[in-house]
Amino acid sequence: MTVGVSVLLDFFGVQSLEHHRADLWEELLERAIVVGNLTMLQIASHQFPGVIHQESQGKPGGATAFALLAESHISVHTWPEKAKIVIDVFTCGSESGLTSLIDYLKAQVPHTTMTITRILRGEKE
Amino acid sequence: MTVGVSVLLDFFGVQSLEHHRADLWEELLERAIVVGNLTMLQIASHQFPGVIHQESQGKPGGATAFALLAESHISVHTWPEKAKIVIDVFTCGSESGLTSLIDYLKAQVPHTTMTITRILRGEKE
Repeated sequence: MTVGVSVLLDFFGVQSLEHHRADLWEELLERAIVVGNLTMLQIASHQFPGVIHQESQGKPGGATAFALLAESHISVHTWPEKAKIVIDVFTCGSESGLTSLIDYLKAQVPHTTMTITRILRGEKE
Repeated sequence: MTVGVSVLLDFFGVQSLEHHRADLWEELLERAIVVGNLTMLQIASHQFPGVIHQESQGKPGGATAFALLAESHISVHTWPEKAKIVIDVFTCGSESGLTSLIDYLKAQVPHTTMTITRILRGEKE
């Protein structure tokens, strides 16, 4: 018997600088949680300062956001200099809610390609 | 080029009720972050109320804890009625720090068996 499922979403080609802002991610997570029929306990985020080096080409720093849910959590980390965003959804909520949540996140993040990895948790003994 | 690594730890047979307390997990995460040479940004936790039903046999509710790091995050979810604890470590920090952190967590959680899954993030494009 599992305790839930981890869904790891890796987005590539996220050139939109807005999607590397922590305040946007707080808003998107709040909406995603409603879409997924989940219950928010706490939300936190952090905007990293921009670093001027060759790779980042003057882009802002990345963002991190985290939502603690009654049904587990969602985390977001972004790397504007690599145009990548990585989202983890860990839930023991309903499968239909999870599908809606993932569809919402995919629609909200402008990207070129992405990967999804699903891992059942607490399964073996 | 990856952006970091997710290490998913699933602990089974965690009978110690103390290890299903949110306040203990805040302490353990603060120490683990020092051991792993990581930098804490924020920490949050939640204790779920105990539910009296056949499966839980009067045990307390589970705990959730989350540490937002400069190098990504650590999350903990516990299920006392199933004697299971699931920890996610997502880091773009050093490999030696990660090994020390995982060794510390394994030593701190009394368990019968466990599984570790490592997944490189943001790798494909």
